[in-house]
Amino acid sequence: MREHDLIQRYFAGRAPARPDVPVGMGDDGAVMAVPPGMMLVSVVDTLVSGVHFPADAPPAAIGHKALAVNLSDVAAMGAEPAWATLALTLPEVQDAWVAAFADGFFGLAQAHDVALVGGDTTQGPLAVTVQVHGLVPAGDALLRSGAGVGDGLYVTGTLGDAALGLALLQAPHDEPDLRDWLLNRLHYPQPRVAAGQVLRGVASAAIDISDGLLADLDHVCAASEAGARVQLASLPLSPAFDALATDGQRRQLPLSGGDDYELLVSVPVANEPRAAELMAGLDCGWTRIGEIVASRDVVCVDAGGRAVEAGARGYSHFQESE
Amino acid sequence: MREHDLIQRYFAGRAPARPDVPVGMGDDGAVMAVPPGMMLVSVVDTLVSGVHFPADAPPAAIGHKALAVNLSDVAAMGAEPAWATLALTLPEVQDAWVAAFADGFFGLAQAHDVALVGGDTTQGPLAVTVQVHGLVPAGDALLRSGAGVGDGLYVTGTLGDAALGLALLQAPHDEPDLRDWLLNRLHYPQPRVAAGQVLRGVASAAIDISDGLLADLDHVCAASEAGARVQLASLPLSPAFDALATDGQRRQLPLSGGDDYELLVSVPVANEPRAAELMAGLDCGWTRIGEIVASRDVVCVDAGGRAVEAGARGYSHFQESE
Repeated sequence: MREHDLIQRYFAGRAPARPDVPVGMGDDGAVMAVPPGMMLVSVVDTLVSGVHFPADAPPAAIGHKALAVNLSDVAAMGAEPAWATLALTLPEVQDAWVAAFADGFFGLAQAHDVALVGGDTTQGPLAVTVQVHGLVPAGDALLRSGAGVGDGLYVTGTLGDAALGLALLQAPHDEPDLRDWLLNRLHYPQPRVAAGQVLRGVASAAIDISDGLLADLDHVCAASEAGARVQLASLPLSPAFDALATDGQRRQLPLSGGDDYELLVSVPVANEPRAAELMAGLDCGWTRIGEIVASRDVVCVDAGGRAVEAGARGYSHFQESE
Repeated sequence: MREHDLIQRYFAGRAPARPDVPVGMGDDGAVMAVPPGMMLVSVVDTLVSGVHFPADAPPAAIGHKALAVNLSDVAAMGAEPAWATLALTLPEVQDAWVAAFADGFFGLAQAHDVALVGGDTTQGPLAVTVQVHGLVPAGDALLRSGAGVGDGLYVTGTLGDAALGLALLQAPHDEPDLRDWLLNRLHYPQPRVAAGQVLRGVASAAIDISDGLLADLDHVCAASEAGARVQLASLPLSPAFDALATDGQRRQLPLSGGDDYELLVSVPVANEPRAAELMAGLDCGWTRIGEIVASRDVVCVDAGGRAVEAGARGYSHFQESE
């Protein structure tokens, strides 16, 4: 199959049409209109087979996740997603695989009214690079750098599910329904797009948790020149995590497991009631897990208020070379 | 080396700073301002090792070319390039390789005042996906679909050089200077960004020649619901091509060799003098090679006016499966 036929068959016309895209796929580039008063937000992420997903992951999950991780970044900026491009590298064209990949991608694109405005398909080792463009009112983007001392620290959803799902991937389990729920969290993360937008003007900083809570919290603290105290007893855990995690997993995964794609948000004390009210209208969870402090460290404290060694701080895409 | 350190060391702060980028690299996404009256143009292209460049290609050439092929698409839309993102997948971090790659990328970025606003580095088989954003006055983008019957057909530069360079890559040659010139055309294509912009409002259609002249001309004809007649004797050839090409290469490569990254442009007859005048001010060549015709076919004619079988029509990124 030729590249042009591949795009025509599986990708052209599948995504929502938007009136702000006068020229979509099929030319050298796409043309889009940014409304007056809005700024453009751009994010990009690559998923590589064997690194970000197992080579035998369900193709619909790969399509979903490649878009979801980018929508999660857009959400963390407080922006509304609008347009996406897809660069797909495939070892060979297997119809069923590509069709399922496209179903996963466009299912999520439809849910968030995201138009696919450009793409590139090439032959090579399986990898997917997606870029998403979002729109945000000028000056209103949620940045990592805005956290202030005393701000409450919140997360959406529950932590550690995807990492536990990954740990359970290789073997059956005598709780198959709970295992499947965790695998679903690994394969089909739900980006917190609505949460990011309602928190604009209310939160002081936001980031999405892709590398693990402590690693991403450290990014916020570094950018904000502050530190944080995390109450371990407050970390939100799902019933499935609670049922299936070993003691070691319970200590590690909510703090350093990657792939959660929940939002980590700081909220000034004066705005905490408003944030709670807004988040109560969304169905994604909202839990206070600590606060921003002046000292640059990130400290975890147990239920008795004692500082606890938190262990590995997350995941880096390159191994330490020495 | 960790991903964060890699980006800091080789990529952060290397590209031109632009006042229209209030939030650049280092947050979940970048924030950019599109001026009133301008539309956003977005293009994306992936280069995969072993497919789009030899695995042992000079890393500076890979960095240059990954940006150049996208700037070429922006040029073909008549847009001014502004911002880029870079998704780089590397098997391992070798300092000298990454430094040379970055030099090639940023050398071209500086030349066109393109800011790097985001990126992603991952571990995996060598591949580079670059996205470039450009700006074009609303309604003025050059599309493939605008060619009209009778319009003159033009190309910038010379044709077939990169394909001949690729053919000469494996062996020394007794004309090393001419071979090196052709290899330079293969490794360091110069996107015709200025040409695309001056032709706005003058040309009727444009495309960049990445898959070969006939393949890309066919894209213009299909989008414009027309055909074309190409004068083989008019195709612009470089002195190096002229000196080193075999008879077979001379017949094939200017028509179907990929990787030229010249512009193919249609110009209404009434605008041809103006186009010639504007292009004379640029140092990139401007040659009339034929015209748009009503019949849907693309026909090549020799110096005697006889139709000639043109052979392979270019290159597709996926092999025919049957």
